Amino acid sequence: MKNFETRAAAAVLLCAIAALIFSFINFFAVKHHDEGNTSIKSVGKKIRRGAMAYLRRQYGTVGIFFVIMYLILTGLSMKGFLSPFVPFAFLTGGFFSGLSGFIGMKIATYANTRTACAAQKGLNKALKIAFSAGSVMGLTVVGLGLLDISVWFIILKFIFKLNINDTMTAMLTFGMGASSMALFARVGGGIFTKAADVGADLVGKVEAEIPEDDPRNPACIADNVGDNVGDVAGMGADLYESYVGSIISCGALAATAGLGFNGVLVPMLIAAIGILASIAGTFFVSVKEDASQKVLLSSLRRGTYISSILSAIGAAILIFTLLPESSNVFWAVISGLLSGVLIGFFTEYYTSDSYKPTKELASSSSTGSATVIIDGIALGMSSTAIPVIIIGISVIVSFFTAGGFASFAKGLYGVGLSAVGMLSTLGITLATDAYGPVADNAGGIAEMTSMPSFVRERTDALDSLGNTTAATGKGFAIGSAALTALALIVSYTDKVTAMGVKLNLSVTNPAVLIGLFVGAMLPFLFSAMTMRAVGRAAQKIVIEVRRQFHEIKGLMEGTAEADYESCVDICTKSSLREMIFPAALGIAAPIATGLVLGCNGVVGMLSGSLISGFALAIMMANSGGAWDNAKKYIEAGNFNGKGSENHKAAVVGDTVGDPFKDTSGPSVNILIKLLSMVSIVFAAVIASYGGMGLF
Amino acid sequence: MKNFETRAAAAVLLCAIAALIFSFINFFAVKHHDEGNTSIKSVGKKIRRGAMAYLRRQYGTVGIFFVIMYLILTGLSMKGFLSPFVPFAFLTGGFFSGLSGFIGMKIATYANTRTACAAQKGLNKALKIAFSAGSVMGLTVVGLGLLDISVWFIILKFIFKLNINDTMTAMLTFGMGASSMALFARVGGGIFTKAADVGADLVGKVEAEIPEDDPRNPACIADNVGDNVGDVAGMGADLYESYVGSIISCGALAATAGLGFNGVLVPMLIAAIGILASIAGTFFVSVKEDASQKVLLSSLRRGTYISSILSAIGAAILIFTLLPESSNVFWAVISGLLSGVLIGFFTEYYTSDSYKPTKELASSSSTGSATVIIDGIALGMSSTAIPVIIIGISVIVSFFTAGGFASFAKGLYGVGLSAVGMLSTLGITLATDAYGPVADNAGGIAEMTSMPSFVRERTDALDSLGNTTAATGKGFAIGSAALTALALIVSYTDKVTAMGVKLNLSVTNPAVLIGLFVGAMLPFLFSAMTMRAVGRAAQKIVIEVRRQFHEIKGLMEGTAEADYESCVDICTKSSLREMIFPAALGIAAPIATGLVLGCNGVVGMLSGSLISGFALAIMMANSGGAWDNAKKYIEAGNFNGKGSENHKAAVVGDTVGDPFKDTSGPSVNILIKLLSMVSIVFAAVIASYGGMGLF
Repeated sequence: MKNFETRAAAAVLLCAIAALIFSFINFFAVKHHDEGNTSIKSVGKKIRRGAMAYLRRQYGTVGIFFVIMYLILTGLSMKGFLSPFVPFAFLTGGFFSGLSGFIGMKIATYANTRTACAAQKGLNKALKIAFSAGSVMGLTVVGLGLLDISVWFIILKFIFKLNINDTMTAMLTFGMGASSMALFARVGGGIFTKAADVGADLVGKVEAEIPEDDPRNPACIADNVGDNVGDVAGMGADLYESYVGSIISCGALAATAGLGFNGVLVPMLIAAIGILASIAGTFFVSVKEDASQKVLLSSLRRGTYISSILSAIGAAILIFTLLPESSNVFWAVISGLLSGVLIGFFTEYYTSDSYKPTKELASSSSTGSATVIIDGIALGMSSTAIPVIIIGISVIVSFFTAGGFASFAKGLYGVGLSAVGMLSTLGITLATDAYGPVADNAGGIAEMTSMPSFVRERTDALDSLGNTTAATGKGFAIGSAALTALALIVSYTDKVTAMGVKLNLSVTNPAVLIGLFVGAMLPFLFSAMTMRAVGRAAQKIVIEVRRQFHEIKGLMEGTAEADYESCVDICTKSSLREMIFPAALGIAAPIATGLVLGCNGVVGMLSGSLISGFALAIMMANSGGAWDNAKKYIEAGNFNGKGSENHKAAVVGDTVGDPFKDTSGPSVNILIKLLSMVSIVFAAVIASYGGMGLF
Repeated sequence: MKNFETRAAAAVLLCAIAALIFSFINFFAVKHHDEGNTSIKSVGKKIRRGAMAYLRRQYGTVGIFFVIMYLILTGLSMKGFLSPFVPFAFLTGGFFSGLSGFIGMKIATYANTRTACAAQKGLNKALKIAFSAGSVMGLTVVGLGLLDISVWFIILKFIFKLNINDTMTAMLTFGMGASSMALFARVGGGIFTKAADVGADLVGKVEAEIPEDDPRNPACIADNVGDNVGDVAGMGADLYESYVGSIISCGALAATAGLGFNGVLVPMLIAAIGILASIAGTFFVSVKEDASQKVLLSSLRRGTYISSILSAIGAAILIFTLLPESSNVFWAVISGLLSGVLIGFFTEYYTSDSYKPTKELASSSSTGSATVIIDGIALGMSSTAIPVIIIGISVIVSFFTAGGFASFAKGLYGVGLSAVGMLSTLGITLATDAYGPVADNAGGIAEMTSMPSFVRERTDALDSLGNTTAATGKGFAIGSAALTALALIVSYTDKVTAMGVKLNLSVTNPAVLIGLFVGAMLPFLFSAMTMRAVGRAAQKIVIEVRRQFHEIKGLMEGTAEADYESCVDICTKSSLREMIFPAALGIAAPIATGLVLGCNGVVGMLSGSLISGFALAIMMANSGGAWDNAKKYIEAGNFNGKGSENHKAAVVGDTVGDPFKDTSGPSVNILIKLLSMVSIVFAAVIASYGGMGLF
């Protein structure tokens, strides 16, 4: 069996490397394409430079945090609270999460100009480049994720020969590093992109009445930089963390269930199969020239569905061969895969203008912006019901098929596996998601460099599709976050129980109950902080753009150039400053709760934040997505079209939805996992000092 | 000791009767005042007639529901699942909850014209009448509440000589009847009032540009009727239910804690003391002529604070005399009283334009309605933090001082007592709350009957104060709902444990976990339903008002009268139709959850809905309150004043806030208690048939 472990770990490592190689090939393939004339190159360079400058400074700020945490963790490990691997594991998690975002953004900023150029020649050519860039991102995230996991596993297991519990603890800390980095990247990037977007729109579109992405708007470069740092780099770090988190937490549950290293290797192998399936799927994404929207979408879907089916087949073979005696866990994986697809579908149902909810939302614009807001919030709120039911069914199926009747721990391992199943095809789902911002940027570049209108039409076709696939992607991100957080909570209880803490997790225990209240409140407070941060940063952009319109002579006439850099600079500074408090809340809340309420209180807090955060994240993502598409639906000529009162009302909805769907909503996903990770890492401290002697 | 029980029950009954007598005296005192000239009388009559017509039809619709539930409960009691008292107890709870609303509305519709008349003579005279009407409402609610409880107690205990558990079960069903009625009244009334308000504003103020309450607006009578059926009758039924629920659930906890009938009588006696303190407090509400806003407010506050202090002293004497060996529970009562006052204060802090948050919200109107919405939602979300901490501290204090260290059950009894403490002075807090809609209506009548502008100024001064006291009242309602629901959840677990169900309430139990997810989602779904209902009903009013403006010649010139009745009729019909589904959700959800997930799942669901509902209710109440006052702040001349772009942006916020604060927010409070009540009543069925054989 030793032999099997080595071979399995090696196979996982090889699949990870395969993903990275495939990703590098695509990277250079994209770079090889024509970037167009000097004007395009110059705009592209400005965006790239702005985005890179932001990332560099973000890493600098986050670096300080990581150094502080490293010192704290080292201190705790020297006192015997943590294993000596923990501080270093924490650093690597953060590093690779950041690296995933960095590479994704690098390729996105190369691909945007090239997609715009290719769109001059044809739709399929543009799709190919944008999608290739997306798959670089997708495969980098899963490749780096699985690389790190397998390398750590090999080091801890084969070199240091740690036992299974110590191995998993060190690996969970690696997850906490990734979560911290992801939270910074999502919050910081989310604030940047929405501050620039809202700021540019408020002065440019509304006050000066110039179109979006008009080169006269001083914030237009910042807006495009924002798409890259928020929607690309932020999302990359975010999904890296989800992916890694689901595999590690499932492994930790295997340890508790007494399934040994084999139980840890199964989720890694499922992920490895998912990588191969994703690579295969990317070859099926292609359309004929001038295909319709529908054909484009079905082409992207074809890739995803083929990957899912291949993944399922692969997982079946794997499980029936390796675990013949508990082959039922196969259904856990399938339930995860299916739940992801279903949540994605319902997200699309609620947010796409092909379906009733968003059409009705658009019609509410007839009675003004207030009704658009009320209806949009109601839409988001009611869209929480189905995902909750799907997750509930998935938990039931995976718990009981994995053996929950006989062994509670095995059932929970099944729940962990369903999260891994849901994310196993992340390589391709992320590719279809990440291609959106590339197409969006390409459209902006086409506008800024005055390309013929049919180019913009083609990039718009790609972009609007990107909204749909992004909605699906958000569904996956939220669903997997819920299952992963759940697995992490169980890991936490296992860990503190192993330390000798006697837990009483009944919801009637005051500590658990107060913890639940506090936990349910945290996503609300956190969302308020991030929304306000966007508001404050946007305010600064508004003032700067107004100043430039006023002071730079000839700007409106197109004879003088705007000072784009100052807007990028303002966004960078504000978002880095504004990301600190929300992130600090994520780290401080579990520690403070633990010190006051003890370990039972921490579990209550984690559960409370999971369930309210899940509902809130779905509501914000879907309200935001529906507002965006309702506006687009009106712009497409429905309900009196662009420029009408209906349109103005819908624009208000869209503006409110921006921080909902791109800043607060996705950040809440990370928050609920980070809270669990921090709790796990600080478990020993809380077990010793928490509870004020009362709990 | 038997002797003591009889004497105590008699004392409680006498205090309840005292409240009712005092309330009747005030009723006739108000009615005795001058109602003014024929034009005032005619408007007053229209409002009264509309309101009564609505209530009659509401009781008809609700009656059908009560008959069905009565039959179901009778069937279950015949099968031995429930005691034979249950069906009848259910009916009486519903009846008295409805009666509280009815009497409150009766007096409010007598007082509105008389307040308008008195305002011609002076501010203090108007305040006296409006506040007397409020105290009729407040004292009727507490009087009827305590009357029913004590009469039931006397019948069950002394006549049928039931044991303590059967007594408390029958009384909890009485609570379920009250909750059901309250939910119908709040949801139906809330939809009526906001549909009329939003509909009247959208066409009248925005399209036709005529002032609020202009007699040319066909919806103006419906708008004023709405204030009565929503803010008065709905609130009366709501708080009746909270009041009764807190006392009964505390009694049920006394039974579990083994404190016997004495333990049940303590909360009843505390409530009785609170009634006497409230009556005393009403005598301190009075101002000199033409007092400032500040003096008015401090006059109302004086009444509340004096009542609180008297209540605390009375509770201290009671507890130290009756329970010398566990006199520490006194601190539980005090922590409840204090928490109510503190939550009320922070509600005011977040929603009054005297403080920073609402001022900043008003300033966000400079960048348009989108930023007003974002900031308002962020304000509401961040305002959830402090109440959660207050409730947390209150639970800790009351749990441990009541003996939670030694006995879990005794600690939970302390938590129940803190809810009773919080609501003990409801007689006067509700009076200061209910006087608001009377003043609001008086202002409307002054406008409709073209009284001199100083009259409107005086009623406006009273009304704007009403907003502040209403905010405080909402804080009390939300805080007490949380504590009461908590006590009810514990009662539920006691009840099913007594039936022989072995509970595993750990949050890592899949049934509990899925229950938590479902529960956290329910308040979102419920709020979406109620908000949409307002939207649909308002839409119908918009169409009708437009039709009348178009078809009735001379309406805009003031030569023809509008068809007010048709608007009242539309609101009535829509709100009665729209209230059915949300109410059905409240009844069906616990039963469905129980059937699928079993008793553990029900507890999870109840806890989930409690914690997410608490956060959501606070958010919606405070966002709504702050938007309302931010608009008023701008209308008072700040940020370019009335008619400016800032004002328009603030009006959008206010319109969004209307269903938030007056329909969905307060209904969520009732929902979380109704879910618990229904679970308790159907516990035996679920214990036998729930869980699908899995859980």
